[in-house]
Amino acid sequence: MPIITLTTDFGLKDSHIAAMKGVIWSIAPNVQIVDVTHLISPQNIMEAAQILRRAAPYYPNGTIHIAVVDPGVGTERRPIAGRLGSHFVVGPDNGIFTGLLEDNERQGNRIEMVHLTRRQYWLPQVSFVFHGRDIFAPVAAHLANGVPLLELGEPILDAIRLTFAKPTPISNGLRGEVTHIDHFGNIYTNILRSDVADRRVSEVWIGETRVSDFVNTFGERPAGTLVSLFGSSDHLLICEVNGNAAQRLGSKVGDTVIVLF
Amino acid sequence: MPIITLTTDFGLKDSHIAAMKGVIWSIAPNVQIVDVTHLISPQNIMEAAQILRRAAPYYPNGTIHIAVVDPGVGTERRPIAGRLGSHFVVGPDNGIFTGLLEDNERQGNRIEMVHLTRRQYWLPQVSFVFHGRDIFAPVAAHLANGVPLLELGEPILDAIRLTFAKPTPISNGLRGEVTHIDHFGNIYTNILRSDVADRRVSEVWIGETRVSDFVNTFGERPAGTLVSLFGSSDHLLICEVNGNAAQRLGSKVGDTVIVLF
Amino acid sequence: MPIITLTTDFGLKDSHIAAMKGVIWSIAPNVQIVDVTHLISPQNIMEAAQILRRAAPYYPNGTIHIAVVDPGVGTERRPIAGRLGSHFVVGPDNGIFTGLLEDNERQGNRIEMVHLTRRQYWLPQVSFVFHGRDIFAPVAAHLANGVPLLELGEPILDAIRLTFAKPTPISNGLRGEVTHIDHFGNIYTNILRSDVADRRVSEVWIGETRVSDFVNTFGERPAGTLVSLFGSSDHLLICEVNGNAAQRLGSKVGDTVIVLF
Repeated sequence: MPIITLTTDFGLKDSHIAAMKGVIWSIAPNVQIVDVTHLISPQNIMEAAQILRRAAPYYPNGTIHIAVVDPGVGTERRPIAGRLGSHFVVGPDNGIFTGLLEDNERQGNRIEMVHLTRRQYWLPQVSFVFHGRDIFAPVAAHLANGVPLLELGEPILDAIRLTFAKPTPISNGLRGEVTHIDHFGNIYTNILRSDVADRRVSEVWIGETRVSDFVNTFGERPAGTLVSLFGSSDHLLICEVNGNAAQRLGSKVGDTVIVLF
Repeated sequence: MPIITLTTDFGLKDSHIAAMKGVIWSIAPNVQIVDVTHLISPQNIMEAAQILRRAAPYYPNGTIHIAVVDPGVGTERRPIAGRLGSHFVVGPDNGIFTGLLEDNERQGNRIEMVHLTRRQYWLPQVSFVFHGRDIFAPVAAHLANGVPLLELGEPILDAIRLTFAKPTPISNGLRGEVTHIDHFGNIYTNILRSDVADRRVSEVWIGETRVSDFVNTFGERPAGTLVSLFGSSDHLLICEVNGNAAQRLGSKVGDTVIVLF
Repeated sequence: MPIITLTTDFGLKDSHIAAMKGVIWSIAPNVQIVDVTHLISPQNIMEAAQILRRAAPYYPNGTIHIAVVDPGVGTERRPIAGRLGSHFVVGPDNGIFTGLLEDNERQGNRIEMVHLTRRQYWLPQVSFVFHGRDIFAPVAAHLANGVPLLELGEPILDAIRLTFAKPTPISNGLRGEVTHIDHFGNIYTNILRSDVADRRVSEVWIGETRVSDFVNTFGERPAGTLVSLFGSSDHLLICEVNGNAAQRLGSKVGDTVIVLF
């Protein structure tokens, strides 16, 4: 029985997540359900797209990812589902699957997307404001039960995509930006290990601050040192050893980061 | 194997929830356990009763709901369990199941409640302060294993109930109140779609503020607009599109809300 | 199929926990995974050791506990696994399992620890900064699949241990300290029921404040009363009935607590 993952901005204090899980288990009793996170910043589709892209590759074939950050719920925005390589996705058509889509395209995997239109796979009553419970949860459960993707709606080729800013080359370096602040206050950038390739990083700047050292891991420097390193998803990070770099530097998503070779 | 749900005010940073799950799986190894929420405001039985009422209807027959908001733990307050229609409940006798109880009565479902007295279904040692782990978790696990409800204690008819404030009719409208602020800052009221029935909502007021528009869903108005709509549980909500209405208005549980037809 | 528990300081908003779970299920598809907590204070190994010690005893034989609070990740600190009585542990060699280790020694249980060295049981690529995903998750999954502990690395006898401060005898009493503040603001101390034994507690002091009453449970006193009692893990607690004692008293971990007989 496949796994269903959940990524939302619903938070942890309300009944919404539990309602979705109840709907899933009512249709597919033995499915394993796992929370990726429910603390996506409200309405931040870009953040959800990036978190999901980092978690999903570690899941087995057949995993179904529901993602619901959905400011357009109940409007003309389409509900969609898709097969991206060996995984499935279910959610709103607002770009939330862009990261997974791009990664699967790069790997040459098979991709199929459908506009969900077959109401017999939804809850009998669909609210205007909670498609997570009324459409996406039941559709994911039916996928888990083996209903074919193409049975759930009409094939589409024009699913909405977000544009992820890419780092730009500058004289002897790269200009990138902050994309995420994690729980520890580590600062994620859009500069990848593959962007640096085999060049040697000589300086890293965030705003007016030069980050002292480029290292392999935190423990190479004493607590309190600002360091730069490649994180576990191969993004360039700026971190304070045993501390909170984002708080110390007042950094936020969108801030400029410069790497010099 | 049935599902056991957990609703508590225990928070997410301590060992309590994990201890309860360990107790359950030690008795009923294959049961599926799901968190409704552990972020009920401390000692807020009313809030737990309402969250549980909104999540529970989506669960399959045989689901067992443990709810523990329990300021009277270790005193004379009784530990109870019950069958409410096709579900079971286990927790303190303090009104925490009032919502589920009323909904099941309204639907004409079979209801049985017992005072838990049979210690052979509890942990061997029962602390004064943690009946969630020592009584409710093992009792729920034994229910999951098929032990009959009436085997667990003595039938009672006088389980404690909370009184949920109902909206009151006023000249050409209804006066209700705020019952919950959700993760997004959406303001829930005790005015239901069925209270409004087929009358047309012309104005919604919260305190001194008139909410501009009554809509079907968020996306019908630009970001920043205050709107009113029926939420996914058919309660009248007051929301800021892509924003936090409760923060903007300084609203809190108990504030007055007026609907004019 | 055994249970795998997770205790970390990774927080709840990133992709790390979900990645670990995906790794586990990719290797051991039917294992049950449960979160103890991911809200350990950043880098606080001592706190993790104590939370894990309180939760673990309620789990069935064969349970595998992964704990990752790991400021030394990627340095010389060893990755380890162990059998402690009927349970297994997997994590960094930094003292995080001290509590479980001491409890199992006290009970005379069999203990074996190994330095994880057999890379065929890890992910093919091991990052410098995320051994939770790359080493500990796959090793735990292989343990769940029945791979023998001694197959995973080299036996060691010198796993690092933390020193838990013990209460010291004073004239007619005990001097202990605050070890944890829970979600409710209850203040945990290192004074155990067994330290008091059959002596009668006459006074409890925290800093300059005398706690009025020694009770069995919260409900014995009106809301707002400061009380002292033995908690569900037999530690002496200082609590405000239906309130937040730590906030009221400004208490923090390490503060002195005096018990007089």
